[in-house]
Amino acid sequence: MKMSEGVEWALHCCLTLAWLEGEGPVPTSKLAAAFDLPAHYLNKFLQNLARAGILSSTAGSRGGFRLAKRPESITLLEIVNAVEGDEWGFRCTEIRQRGAGCHAAKSDFSRPCGIAAAMRRAEDAWRRELAAQTVADLVRTAPPSGTQRMRRWYADQAR
Amino acid sequence: MKMSEGVEWALHCCLTLAWLEGEGPVPTSKLAAAFDLPAHYLNKFLQNLARAGILSSTAGSRGGFRLAKRPESITLLEIVNAVEGDEWGFRCTEIRQRGAGCHAAKSDFSRPCGIAAAMRRAEDAWRRELAAQTVADLVRTAPPSGTQRMRRWYADQAR
Repeated sequence: MKMSEGVEWALHCCLTLAWLEGEGPVPTSKLAAAFDLPAHYLNKFLQNLARAGILSSTAGSRGGFRLAKRPESITLLEIVNAVEGDEWGFRCTEIRQRGAGCHAAKSDFSRPCGIAAAMRRAEDAWRRELAAQTVADLVRTAPPSGTQRMRRWYADQAR
Repeated sequence: MKMSEGVEWALHCCLTLAWLEGEGPVPTSKLAAAFDLPAHYLNKFLQNLARAGILSSTAGSRGGFRLAKRPESITLLEIVNAVEGDEWGFRCTEIRQRGAGCHAAKSDFSRPCGIAAAMRRAEDAWRRELAAQTVADLVRTAPPSGTQRMRRWYADQAR
Protein backbone atom coordinates (compact mmCIF):
# COMPACT_ATOMS: atom_id res chain seq x y z
CA MET A 1 0.00 0.00 0.00
CA LYS A 2 1.30 3.39 -0.95
CA MET A 3 0.18 6.91 -0.23
CA SER A 4 1.05 10.04 -2.19
CA GLU A 5 3.32 12.71 -0.73
CA GLY A 6 0.23 14.92 -0.68
CA VAL A 7 -0.95 13.12 2.47
CA GLU A 8 2.11 14.25 4.43
CA TRP A 9 1.77 17.77 3.05
CA ALA A 10 -1.96 18.02 3.81
CA LEU A 11 -1.57 16.76 7.38
CA HIS A 12 1.24 19.24 8.13
CA CYS A 13 -0.74 22.10 6.56
CA CYS A 14 -3.82 21.31 8.66
CA LEU A 15 -1.72 21.18 11.84
CA THR A 16 -0.05 24.47 10.85
CA LEU A 17 -3.42 26.14 10.19
CA ALA A 18 -4.55 24.97 13.64
CA TRP A 19 -1.43 26.58 15.14
CA LEU A 20 -2.05 29.79 13.18
CA GLU A 21 -5.75 30.10 14.02
CA GLY A 22 -6.49 33.74 14.71
CA GLU A 23 -3.94 34.93 12.13
CA GLY A 24 -6.51 35.13 9.34
CA PRO A 25 -6.30 33.21 6.06
CA VAL A 26 -2.83 31.82 5.29
CA PRO A 27 -1.83 32.05 1.61
CA THR A 28 -0.65 28.97 -0.27
CA SER A 29 2.73 30.67 -0.84
CA LYS A 30 3.30 30.87 2.94
CA LEU A 31 2.24 27.25 3.57
CA ALA A 32 4.55 26.17 0.74
CA ALA A 33 7.43 28.23 2.16
CA ALA A 34 6.84 26.83 5.67
CA PHE A 35 7.80 23.38 4.38
CA ASP A 36 9.78 24.28 1.26
CA LEU A 37 7.15 22.70 -1.04
CA PRO A 38 6.22 23.61 -4.63
CA ALA A 39 3.33 26.10 -4.21
CA HIS A 40 1.45 25.23 -7.37
CA TYR A 41 1.44 21.52 -6.61
CA LEU A 42 0.59 22.06 -2.93
CA ASN A 43 -2.34 24.24 -3.97
CA LYS A 44 -3.95 21.24 -5.68
CA PHE A 45 -4.07 19.41 -2.34
CA LEU A 46 -5.30 22.48 -0.47
CA GLN A 47 -8.13 22.79 -2.98
CA ASN A 48 -8.98 19.12 -2.34
CA LEU A 49 -9.13 19.85 1.40
CA ALA A 50 -11.39 22.85 0.72
CA ARG A 51 -13.71 20.79 -1.47
CA ALA A 52 -13.94 18.24 1.36
CA GLY A 53 -15.04 20.98 3.78
CA ILE A 54 -11.85 20.76 5.86
CA LEU A 55 -10.46 24.15 4.81
CA SER A 56 -12.22 27.32 3.77
CA SER A 57 -10.56 29.54 1.20
CA THR A 58 -10.75 33.28 0.78
CA ALA A 59 -9.86 34.94 -2.53
CA GLY A 60 -8.02 38.21 -2.98
CA SER A 61 -4.65 39.70 -2.06
CA ARG A 62 -5.19 38.94 1.63
CA GLY A 63 -6.80 35.60 0.85
CA GLY A 64 -5.69 32.12 1.73
CA PHE A 65 -6.77 29.08 3.71
CA ARG A 66 -7.97 28.47 7.23
CA LEU A 67 -9.55 25.48 8.93
CA ALA A 68 -13.25 25.31 8.11
CA LYS A 69 -14.02 23.44 11.35
CA ARG A 70 -12.64 23.16 14.85
CA PRO A 71 -9.48 21.00 15.05
CA GLU A 72 -11.29 18.41 17.21
CA SER A 73 -13.86 17.98 14.43
CA ILE A 74 -11.33 17.15 11.70
CA THR A 75 -10.25 13.52 11.69
CA LEU A 76 -7.10 12.23 10.03
CA LEU A 77 -9.34 9.95 7.95
CA GLU A 78 -11.10 12.96 6.41
CA ILE A 79 -7.76 14.52 5.47
CA VAL A 80 -6.40 11.28 3.98
CA ASN A 81 -9.63 10.71 2.04
CA ALA A 82 -9.61 14.27 0.72
CA VAL A 83 -6.15 13.70 -0.78
CA GLU A 84 -6.26 10.03 -1.74
CA GLY A 85 -9.96 9.48 -2.40
CA ASP A 86 -12.03 7.05 -0.38
CA GLU A 87 -11.84 4.00 -2.65
CA TRP A 88 -10.57 0.77 -1.17
CA GLY A 89 -6.80 0.31 -1.38
CA PHE A 90 -7.34 -3.33 -2.27
CA ARG A 91 -9.08 -3.45 -5.60
CA CYS A 92 -11.20 -6.56 -6.15
CA THR A 93 -11.60 -7.13 -9.89
CA GLU A 94 -13.51 -10.39 -9.35
CA ILE A 95 -10.89 -12.58 -10.99
CA ARG A 96 -12.70 -15.54 -9.39
CA GLN A 97 -15.32 -15.12 -12.14
CA ARG A 98 -12.73 -15.40 -14.93
CA GLY A 99 -10.87 -18.42 -16.32
CA ALA A 100 -11.96 -21.43 -14.29
CA GLY A 101 -14.99 -19.48 -13.07
CA CYS A 102 -16.21 -18.04 -16.35
CA HIS A 103 -18.89 -20.68 -16.98
CA ALA A 104 -20.14 -20.89 -13.38
CA ALA A 105 -23.66 -19.78 -12.44
CA LYS A 106 -23.79 -16.10 -11.45
CA SER A 107 -25.44 -17.17 -8.19
CA ASP A 108 -22.14 -18.82 -7.21
CA PHE A 109 -20.75 -15.32 -6.79
CA SER A 110 -23.63 -13.71 -4.95
CA ARG A 111 -21.61 -13.61 -1.70
CA PRO A 112 -18.69 -11.16 -1.74
CA CYS A 113 -15.32 -12.75 -2.47
CA GLY A 114 -13.76 -13.96 0.80
CA ILE A 115 -10.39 -12.52 -0.19
CA ALA A 116 -11.84 -9.05 -0.77
CA ALA A 117 -13.78 -9.31 2.51
CA ALA A 118 -10.59 -10.23 4.43
CA MET A 119 -8.65 -7.36 2.88
CA ARG A 120 -11.45 -4.93 3.65
CA ARG A 121 -11.57 -5.98 7.28
CA ALA A 122 -7.94 -4.86 7.50
CA GLU A 123 -8.71 -1.56 5.77
CA ASP A 124 -11.63 -1.02 8.12
CA ALA A 125 -9.22 -1.35 11.07
CA TRP A 126 -6.97 1.27 9.43
CA ARG A 127 -9.90 3.61 8.83
CA ARG A 128 -11.18 3.21 12.39
CA GLU A 129 -7.79 4.19 13.75
CA LEU A 130 -7.55 7.25 11.47
CA ALA A 131 -11.11 8.27 12.29
CA ALA A 132 -10.30 8.14 16.01
CA GLN A 133 -7.54 10.76 15.71
CA THR A 134 -8.13 14.45 15.04
CA VAL A 135 -6.12 17.56 14.26
CA ALA A 136 -6.67 18.54 17.90
CA ASP A 137 -4.78 15.37 18.92
CA LEU A 138 -1.89 16.41 16.66
CA VAL A 139 -1.89 19.85 18.29
CA ARG A 140 -1.92 18.29 21.77
CA THR A 141 0.94 15.88 21.12
CA ALA A 142 3.20 18.21 19.12
CA PRO A 143 6.26 19.52 21.02
CA PRO A 144 5.80 23.14 22.17
CA SER A 145 9.01 24.06 20.33
CA GLY A 146 7.38 23.16 16.99
CA THR A 147 4.32 25.30 17.67
CA GLN A 148 6.40 28.27 18.81
CA ARG A 149 8.81 28.00 15.89
CA MET A 150 6.01 28.02 13.34
CA ARG A 151 4.23 30.97 14.97
CA ARG A 152 7.47 32.94 15.17
CA TRP A 153 8.35 32.11 11.57
CA TYR A 154 4.90 33.21 10.39
CA ALA A 155 5.09 36.48 12.33
CA ASP A 156 8.52 37.15 10.77
CA GLN A 157 7.07 36.61 7.30
CA ALA A 158 4.52 39.37 7.87
CA ARG A 159 7.23 41.96 8.66
CA MET B 1 -3.75 4.15 -0.19
CA LYS B 2 -3.49 1.95 -3.22
CA MET B 3 -2.42 -1.62 -3.78
CA SER B 4 -1.26 -3.18 -7.04
CA GLU B 5 -3.38 -5.75 -8.83
CA GLY B 6 -0.65 -8.24 -7.94
CA VAL B 7 -2.06 -8.44 -4.41
CA GLU B 8 -5.39 -9.79 -5.66
CA TRP B 9 -3.60 -12.19 -8.00
CA ALA B 10 -1.19 -13.45 -5.34
CA LEU B 11 -3.95 -14.05 -2.76
CA HIS B 12 -6.08 -16.00 -5.25
CA CYS B 13 -3.07 -18.06 -6.37
CA CYS B 14 -2.19 -18.96 -2.77
CA LEU B 15 -5.79 -20.01 -2.07
CA THR B 16 -5.82 -22.04 -5.31
CA LEU B 17 -2.55 -23.76 -4.41
CA ALA B 18 -4.04 -24.65 -1.02
CA TRP B 19 -7.05 -26.17 -2.82
CA LEU B 20 -4.76 -28.09 -5.19
CA GLU B 21 -2.42 -29.44 -2.51
CA GLY B 22 -1.59 -33.02 -3.37
CA GLU B 23 -1.71 -32.33 -7.11
CA GLY B 24 2.02 -31.62 -7.33
CA PRO B 25 3.53 -28.37 -8.57
CA VAL B 26 1.12 -26.16 -10.54
CA PRO B 27 2.70 -24.39 -13.52
CA THR B 28 2.38 -20.62 -13.93
CA SER B 29 0.50 -21.18 -17.20
CA LYS B 30 -2.27 -23.06 -15.33
CA LEU B 31 -2.52 -20.47 -12.54
CA ALA B 32 -2.71 -17.76 -15.21
CA ALA B 33 -5.40 -19.67 -17.11
CA ALA B 34 -7.40 -20.27 -13.91
CA PHE B 35 -7.96 -16.51 -13.64
CA ASP B 36 -7.35 -15.42 -17.24
CA LEU B 37 -4.23 -13.45 -16.27
CA PRO B 38 -1.11 -12.65 -18.33
CA ALA B 39 1.27 -15.53 -17.47
CA HIS B 40 4.52 -13.60 -17.82
CA TYR B 41 3.35 -10.80 -15.55
CA LEU B 42 1.81 -13.19 -13.02
CA ASN B 43 5.09 -15.10 -12.89
CA LYS B 44 6.81 -12.01 -11.50
CA PHE B 45 4.49 -12.07 -8.48
CA LEU B 46 4.83 -15.83 -8.04
CA GLN B 47 8.61 -15.40 -7.96
CA ASN B 48 8.16 -12.73 -5.27
CA LEU B 49 6.09 -15.19 -3.23
CA ALA B 50 8.79 -17.85 -3.69
CA ARG B 51 11.53 -15.45 -2.59
CA ALA B 52 9.48 -14.69 0.52
CA GLY B 53 9.32 -18.41 1.38
CA ILE B 54 5.56 -18.64 0.77
CA LEU B 55 5.78 -20.76 -2.39
CA SER B 56 8.35 -23.30 -3.46
CA SER B 57 9.11 -23.65 -7.13
CA THR B 58 10.22 -26.70 -9.08
CA ALA B 59 11.91 -26.34 -12.46
CA GLY B 60 11.39 -28.58 -15.48
CA SER B 61 8.55 -29.68 -17.73
CA ARG B 62 6.52 -30.91 -14.74
CA GLY B 63 7.59 -27.98 -12.60
CA GLY B 64 5.57 -25.22 -11.09
CA PHE B 65 4.58 -23.76 -7.75
CA ARG B 66 3.20 -25.18 -4.52
CA LEU B 67 2.78 -23.73 -1.04
CA ALA B 68 6.07 -23.87 0.85
CA LYS B 69 4.27 -23.99 4.21
CA ARG B 70 1.00 -25.19 5.64
CA PRO B 71 -1.93 -22.85 4.83
CA GLU B 72 -2.39 -22.01 8.54
CA SER B 73 1.22 -20.77 8.64
CA ILE B 74 0.83 -18.28 5.79
CA THR B 75 -0.66 -14.97 6.86
CA LEU B 76 -2.26 -12.48 4.51
CA LEU B 77 0.31 -9.94 5.71
CA GLU B 78 3.18 -12.10 4.41
CA ILE B 79 1.51 -12.35 1.00
CA VAL B 80 0.80 -8.62 0.79
CA ASN B 81 4.35 -7.77 1.88
CA ALA B 82 5.84 -10.19 -0.66
CA VAL B 83 4.03 -8.33 -3.45
CA GLU B 84 4.02 -4.76 -2.20
CA GLY B 85 7.13 -4.65 -0.04
CA ASP B 86 6.98 -3.93 3.66
CA GLU B 87 7.67 -0.20 3.62
CA TRP B 88 5.18 2.10 5.30
CA GLY B 89 2.36 3.28 3.04
CA PHE B 90 2.65 6.72 4.61
CA ARG B 91 6.03 8.12 3.68
CA CYS B 92 7.41 10.65 6.17
CA THR B 93 9.96 12.85 4.42
CA GLU B 94 10.47 15.01 7.52
CA ILE B 95 9.10 18.18 5.92
CA ARG B 96 8.90 19.60 9.46
CA GLN B 97 12.70 20.06 9.18
CA ARG B 98 12.42 22.13 6.00
CA GLY B 99 11.31 25.73 5.44
CA ALA B 100 10.33 27.14 8.83
CA GLY B 101 12.23 24.30 10.53
CA CYS B 102 15.47 24.43 8.57
CA HIS B 103 17.41 26.49 11.12
CA ALA B 104 16.07 24.71 14.22
CA ALA B 105 18.36 22.62 16.43
CA LYS B 106 18.51 18.97 15.35
CA SER B 107 17.55 18.02 18.91
CA ASP B 108 14.12 19.61 18.25
CA PHE B 109 13.43 16.65 15.97
CA SER B 110 14.78 13.84 18.13
CA ARG B 111 11.22 12.56 18.81
CA PRO B 112 9.49 11.03 15.79
CA CYS B 113 7.10 13.38 14.00
CA GLY B 114 3.66 13.12 15.63
CA ILE B 115 1.99 13.01 12.22
CA ALA B 116 4.09 10.05 11.10
CA ALA B 117 3.46 8.33 14.44
CA ALA B 118 -0.32 8.78 14.07
CA MET B 119 -0.29 7.44 10.53
CA ARG B 120 1.81 4.47 11.58
CA ARG B 121 -0.57 3.59 14.39
CA ALA B 122 -3.25 3.20 11.72
CA GLU B 123 -0.98 1.08 9.55
CA ASP B 124 -0.12 -1.06 12.55
CA ALA B 125 -3.85 -1.75 13.00
CA TRP B 126 -4.03 -2.77 9.33
CA ARG B 127 -1.00 -5.04 9.66
CA ARG B 128 -2.32 -6.65 12.84
CA GLU B 129 -5.57 -7.53 11.09
CA LEU B 130 -3.75 -8.99 8.07
CA ALA B 131 -1.37 -10.92 10.30
CA ALA B 132 -4.33 -12.46 12.14
CA GLN B 133 -5.74 -14.03 8.97
CA THR B 134 -4.18 -17.00 7.16
CA VAL B 135 -4.63 -18.89 3.91
CA ALA B 136 -6.31 -21.60 6.02
CA ASP B 137 -8.97 -19.03 7.00
CA LEU B 138 -9.56 -18.29 3.32
CA VAL B 139 -9.93 -22.04 2.66
CA ARG B 140 -12.37 -22.40 5.56
CA THR B 141 -14.59 -19.49 4.56
CA ALA B 142 -14.62 -20.09 0.78
CA PRO B 143 -17.89 -21.54 -0.59
CA PRO B 144 -17.58 -25.30 -1.34
CA SER B 145 -18.69 -24.59 -4.91
CA GLY B 146 -15.55 -22.51 -5.51
CA THR B 147 -13.23 -25.25 -4.22
CA GLN B 148 -14.98 -27.95 -6.25
CA ARG B 149 -15.04 -25.85 -9.40
CA MET B 150 -11.32 -25.15 -9.25
CA ARG B 151 -10.43 -28.80 -8.56
CA ARG B 152 -12.65 -29.99 -11.39
CA TRP B 153 -11.24 -27.38 -13.76
CA TYR B 154 -7.67 -28.40 -12.88
CA ALA B 155 -8.41 -32.08 -13.37
CA ASP B 156 -9.94 -31.28 -16.79
CA GLN B 157 -6.76 -29.39 -17.76
CA ALA B 158 -4.66 -32.50 -17.16
CA ARG B 159 -6.67 -34.62 -19.58
